[in-house]
Amino acid sequence: MKSVNFDHISANPLLPEVKQAMIEAINLDYHNPSSQHRDGENAAAAIAQARTAVAKLVNAATPKEIVFTSGGTESINHAVKGVALANIEKGNHIVTSNIEHNAVIRSLRRLKSAGFKVTSLPVDQSGRVNPADIADAITAETILVSIMHSNNETGTIQPVEEIAQITRDKKVIFHTDAVDSVGVVPIDAQSLGIDLLSFASNTFYGPTGVGGLYIRRGTRVFPLLDGGVQENNKRAGTENLIGIIGMGKAAELAQRDLASRLTHIKGLKEKFLAELPDYIDEYIINTHEQHSLPNLVSLSIKYIEGESVLLMLDDEGIAVSTRSACATGSLRASHVLLSLGLSHADAQGTLVLSFGVDNTEADVATLLAALKRVVKTLRAISPLYQKSSAC
Amino acid sequence: MKSVNFDHISANPLLPEVKQAMIEAINLDYHNPSSQHRDGENAAAAIAQARTAVAKLVNAATPKEIVFTSGGTESINHAVKGVALANIEKGNHIVTSNIEHNAVIRSLRRLKSAGFKVTSLPVDQSGRVNPADIADAITAETILVSIMHSNNETGTIQPVEEIAQITRDKKVIFHTDAVDSVGVVPIDAQSLGIDLLSFASNTFYGPTGVGGLYIRRGTRVFPLLDGGVQENNKRAGTENLIGIIGMGKAAELAQRDLASRLTHIKGLKEKFLAELPDYIDEYIINTHEQHSLPNLVSLSIKYIEGESVLLMLDDEGIAVSTRSACATGSLRASHVLLSLGLSHADAQGTLVLSFGVDNTEADVATLLAALKRVVKTLRAISPLYQKSSAC
Repeated sequence: MKSVNFDHISANPLLPEVKQAMIEAINLDYHNPSSQHRDGENAAAAIAQARTAVAKLVNAATPKEIVFTSGGTESINHAVKGVALANIEKGNHIVTSNIEHNAVIRSLRRLKSAGFKVTSLPVDQSGRVNPADIADAITAETILVSIMHSNNETGTIQPVEEIAQITRDKKVIFHTDAVDSVGVVPIDAQSLGIDLLSFASNTFYGPTGVGGLYIRRGTRVFPLLDGGVQENNKRAGTENLIGIIGMGKAAELAQRDLASRLTHIKGLKEKFLAELPDYIDEYIINTHEQHSLPNLVSLSIKYIEGESVLLMLDDEGIAVSTRSACATGSLRASHVLLSLGLSHADAQGTLVLSFGVDNTEADVATLLAALKRVVKTLRAISPLYQKSSAC
Repeated sequence: MKSVNFDHISANPLLPEVKQAMIEAINLDYHNPSSQHRDGENAAAAIAQARTAVAKLVNAATPKEIVFTSGGTESINHAVKGVALANIEKGNHIVTSNIEHNAVIRSLRRLKSAGFKVTSLPVDQSGRVNPADIADAITAETILVSIMHSNNETGTIQPVEEIAQITRDKKVIFHTDAVDSVGVVPIDAQSLGIDLLSFASNTFYGPTGVGGLYIRRGTRVFPLLDGGVQENNKRAGTENLIGIIGMGKAAELAQRDLASRLTHIKGLKEKFLAELPDYIDEYIINTHEQHSLPNLVSLSIKYIEGESVLLMLDDEGIAVSTRSACATGSLRASHVLLSLGLSHADAQGTLVLSFGVDNTEADVATLLAALKRVVKTLRAISPLYQKSSAC
């Protein structure tokens, strides 16, 4: 990794204890947890321990409500497609928002081509959905509401609890994509009142390629992967044992250290935002002041391109991103930023800065100083900036 | 693991070089392969290297024909459901066999409830599908033939090349579940002429929870996981980097050592089968003499229950299985064995013995001696055996 990493949203480093747990698992030569002989018992016990840790992290009523998956994307596909296909006799209408992750958007697109109807709601300038709009959008045909807990590009947190109150009243299943929230902010599946919650291990410093789906007991959802009877018959396939053990350890640490991590990371974010005006001017903060992830800042710097800032910071050994790593390769402006009402130019000037437990105050100072140099250099050659200065 | 492991079909141990590659990957702190800054480049290069190794193992025309998945089950679900949904405008009929893995059977059951029609063909007493039956079953509506390469309970290998000739002539997509074949016997996707081939890393001593799907260029198949643009837009989700690196190393070793492994394992299987009559009598070998995996023997021992043999061998530190680990928990007799024409009693008396690179001739001797003791003990208390002896 870089000496200075402000791209935790794309990839968090593994914590030392997680590495150790995974390396131990590799060396233990576990057998198949479904084996009929005793060799499988250790493996089954290791998975049960991980499941308990993950269940505690999201406060599931029982570990049985947790299904291990291959990551946030599978969890989301499982939830969205699984609810749709399992409830088609009740209706074929789904409500979502315009700023969801591509895993939700493209799963819904797939369902639309199979005859489902989707209402996608706008967000306000602060990036939040209005719960009243959801109540209005729900019809007798609605079987699912899928609204993300926090946005991966802006960090803005949605009014999930209020939405859950509406879906409960109207007896509609509610899924929330909490991939960037679980392990970062306290998440209590029971008190939130949601039915399905998607999350990923890497968000809380576990390995990539492993995630979880919380399915409230009694929620009608089909498996995405059909086959064997693993995961209480909810997700077939021999388990990614080493990944699950890593995720379990990461969940245990996330729960233990959540408060101190929050204090540390909030401090860094506050320092960055407080000092930023001393280094650059003419920028927009797209992250909600109150309702947002403590570890993320979306910053649109006027008159220049985020991509150029990223590359120049990269040269200085500082990692940032301009958007979801999942959307890299797409040249179009972010649908999330455009939904907030940003102009194309401002959307192109956007950086996503995401802080992690390994960042220090010195890192923030390094970032600020580098940003000042880079922005000055880029604006010096920006026709947009010269035009604006001339006016 | 046990001192003597004859249940490699449920779980292979990781090879030392695979462990080392995975541990190195854990300690390297890779970034996200889709990151925009340079930190992601190493991760992307590691995945590319693994993809090349896997492509070589199955002789794909290009690494782009390989999609990494979370294991054999996901590969199969992706292939079967993906072809069905992508080709629905051409037709809605699928041809398969009665002895497929539950990942195929249950994926097809899911499709049936969505309106697809499935013809499931019987096998002969040796466990093989008759290619002529497949030719007869294909109609103008047929979009997919899914026949496994080798069976996970009997080891019998299907006439895949002949079937591929038929599907090519009739312009129907052919998927083969080769989860228990790839890395064990030579598999050449191009010369076999198949369109889709599912496989799993653990079969060749890589980690569980990671697998691959070969998709011949131009084959029309939808992704199972929608979202980001990973895996050439064929499978969304942040990659299981550590698992993929382990699978790549395992593929490289499998290709390098395939011939010597075959010699070793065939030797053990031959020794076992040659000496078995000296230890027990009245049994059936369900594994095809010619067309079968070199590492698997399915053995039905008359008048006793496989489950009891398994438990008593377990007490002696010997691991075997009675059926697919994926089906553990189901009390019904194996659908595979019943399809061969075995009686329920004989099916219940079945053991699946699977050999691995770590087995020795001494292991085989230990197994034979233990089998003799166990069978004697169990038959002494078996009402079926006493009745038979009395006749």
